Amino acid sequence: MIKIALDAMGSDEYPTPDVIGAVLAAREYDVEILLVGDEALINPILAAQKPGNLPIRVIHAPEMLTMNDKGDALVFKARHKDSKNSMAVGMDLVKNGEADAFVTAGNTGAAWITAFFRLGRLKGVSKPALAAIFPTAKGHTIVMDIGANPDCEPENLAQFAKMGSVYAEKVRGVKNPKVGLISNGEEEGKGNKLVREATPLLKECGVNFIGNVEGKEVIGGVVDVAITDGFTGNVILKTSEAISKLLIDKIKTAIKSGNILVKIGGLLIKPALKSLKELLDPSQEGAAPLLGVNGLVFIGHGRSDEQAIKNAIRVARNAVASGVLDSIKNNLQP
Amino acid sequence: MIKIALDAMGSDEYPTPDVIGAVLAAREYDVEILLVGDEALINPILAAQKPGNLPIRVIHAPEMLTMNDKGDALVFKARHKDSKNSMAVGMDLVKNGEADAFVTAGNTGAAWITAFFRLGRLKGVSKPALAAIFPTAKGHTIVMDIGANPDCEPENLAQFAKMGSVYAEKVRGVKNPKVGLISNGEEEGKGNKLVREATPLLKECGVNFIGNVEGKEVIGGVVDVAITDGFTGNVILKTSEAISKLLIDKIKTAIKSGNILVKIGGLLIKPALKSLKELLDPSQEGAAPLLGVNGLVFIGHGRSDEQAIKNAIRVARNAVASGVLDSIKNNLQP
Repeated sequence: MIKIALDAMGSDEYPTPDVIGAVLAAREYDVEILLVGDEALINPILAAQKPGNLPIRVIHAPEMLTMNDKGDALVFKARHKDSKNSMAVGMDLVKNGEADAFVTAGNTGAAWITAFFRLGRLKGVSKPALAAIFPTAKGHTIVMDIGANPDCEPENLAQFAKMGSVYAEKVRGVKNPKVGLISNGEEEGKGNKLVREATPLLKECGVNFIGNVEGKEVIGGVVDVAITDGFTGNVILKTSEAISKLLIDKIKTAIKSGNILVKIGGLLIKPALKSLKELLDPSQEGAAPLLGVNGLVFIGHGRSDEQAIKNAIRVARNAVASGVLDSIKNNLQP
Repeated sequence: MIKIALDAMGSDEYPTPDVIGAVLAAREYDVEILLVGDEALINPILAAQKPGNLPIRVIHAPEMLTMNDKGDALVFKARHKDSKNSMAVGMDLVKNGEADAFVTAGNTGAAWITAFFRLGRLKGVSKPALAAIFPTAKGHTIVMDIGANPDCEPENLAQFAKMGSVYAEKVRGVKNPKVGLISNGEEEGKGNKLVREATPLLKECGVNFIGNVEGKEVIGGVVDVAITDGFTGNVILKTSEAISKLLIDKIKTAIKSGNILVKIGGLLIKPALKSLKELLDPSQEGAAPLLGVNGLVFIGHGRSDEQAIKNAIRVARNAVASGVLDSIKNNLQP
C-alpha cells in the first residue's frame, strides 16, 4: 500500500484539519498515512475521529517549523541530522524509504529548504521548483515556478520545463503536453532578458515548446505547462487570487445593493456561484508538487482545511502510483 | 482652451471610433481636438457626425504606424524629422506647443519610441514608463511600468515611483499617495534581485513608500501607486484581464447550463453583472499615461471604442489642466 507522510503541524489551524484530512483520505483512498507531529496534540483529535482499523500511524516529532523560521537558523534546522521538527522527520521517512511522499501545509520556504538539504537535488537540477495547478477555461494548467526561486537563470527555466512536462504527462494524464514560456507578448523576441535567453534552451530541451504565452493563453488553457521564474509566477498566483476575490465580492455587493428582483436573482443563482467558487478553489487540487528534489514533496496552502488536506493526500498518492519521480529522473539524463 | 491632438488612425477599427470619440469629447468637455490622420478617411466620418461649430480640426497625416512597424525601421520613422505618420505628426504638434497632449489607441511600442525620440526624456528619467489605472476594491491604483521596459534597473523603479506619485496626486487627486513595490511577499528582504536593490532607493526618493506589496494589496486598493518592472507589470495586466474574462464566462456558462430557476436568476441579476463589467472595463479610464517624456502622451487599448476614445480625451484634458507635467519635472529635480 502506498504510504504518505503527512505533516500534522502544517496548516494554520494545525493539527485539526491535518489530522481530520488524514482520516478522510485513509477512509476514501487506498493509502496508509504516517501522521508526523506532536503525538500529545495529535492523539486526542485522531481518537475523536474513531479511526478504528484505518491504516494511520502517528510518528512523534516534538518540534515544528513556523513562519518565523528563516535565514541561517532555518538552514541549520534543515541540515541537522537530529532535527526533530515535523518537516525534517517527515522528509527523513521519505529519504529512508519508509514513506513514498511527504505532504505539508506549512511554511513553503521551510519545506523547500528542508527538502533541498534532506532529500537533495536530482542530477541535472540546479533549483527545485514549485508547480501550481491553475484553473483555466479548459481545465488546468501547471504554472512553475510559483515562488521557490525569485531569481532564475535561463537553464533553470529549461529544467522546469522538462520536469513540468513529465509531471503533466504522468500525473495529470496529458499526452505530449504543450509548454509555453510566460512573457509580455507572444512573439519571439518579446520578453525580458531571462525570457529571451531561455527561448533557445526551451526549444532544444525536448519538450513540446510552443513559444511565448501571455495571460490569455495560460488562463485560456492553450498550454498545459506555463514556465516562468518564481518571482513572476508568485506575482501571477497572488494577483489571480486577488482578482477572483475582488470579482466575487463585487458580484455579492451588486446583488446585495440591487433591487428586490436582483436580490431574488442572486438567491436563484447561488448554486451556480457556489460551483464557480469550487472551480476556482485551490483546495480542490490540494497541494503543489515540489519538483527537482530526490523524493516526492507536496506543499499545500496554510489555509488548507480538512478537504484540502484530503485532496493533497490524493494528489500525492496518485503521483506515487504514476511513477513520476523515476520518469523525471530519466528525463533529466542528458 | 486646452488642445488635444488625437491619433485618428490609432484604434483597431480606425478611424471611425477615433473620430466619433473626438466628436463626443468636443461636445461634452471644454476641449479643442486636433484630429491627426488621413483626411480623406477622416472627413466623411466627421461630416456624418454633423460637428457644426465644434472645435475640431483635421491635421493631415498621410501615413500611419501599425503593429508591423518594429525594429530599426520603426526607430527610423520615429526619429526622422519628415515622418508623416499620424503619431509623428501628432507628437510634433505637442513638441511645437500647438497641442497640449497627444492621445493614441495605436501600437504601444511605436508610440513609446516615437515619444522617446520626438519629445525626448525628462531630465532625471532613463526610461519613460506606462502607467495603467487598475480597478481595485476601493477605487483605482496606478500600476507602472506595464510594458514599456521589460528589463529595469533599481533606479528606474525609483524614477517610476516619483512620477507615479506625482500623477496620483495631481491628476487622480490622492493626497500623499501610498507607494508600494510589487513583490513575492510583503516582508522586506523578499523579492528578486531587482526588488531587493530597489527598496533602499524607494525609501529615499521622497515618496510615501509603504514597502513590498502583493496582489491582495494592489487589487485590494491598499496602495495608490504600485511599482514594478515592465515585464512583471505587463504579465499582471494580461493575467488580470484573462482571469476577469474567465470568471465572467464561467458565470454565464453556469447560468446557461443551470435549471430554469437559475436561468431566471441570471436574467434578474443581469443589470448587476453589467455594472460589474463596466467597473472592470479598461475603457472607463480611457488610456494610460506615458510618463517621463517631455510632453503628455496617453496610450489607449487597440480595442478602444468611441466611449474609450472620449474617456481618453477627458483623462488627457484633466492631466493638462492639473499641470502634472511641470510638477513631475519639478519633482525630478535633485
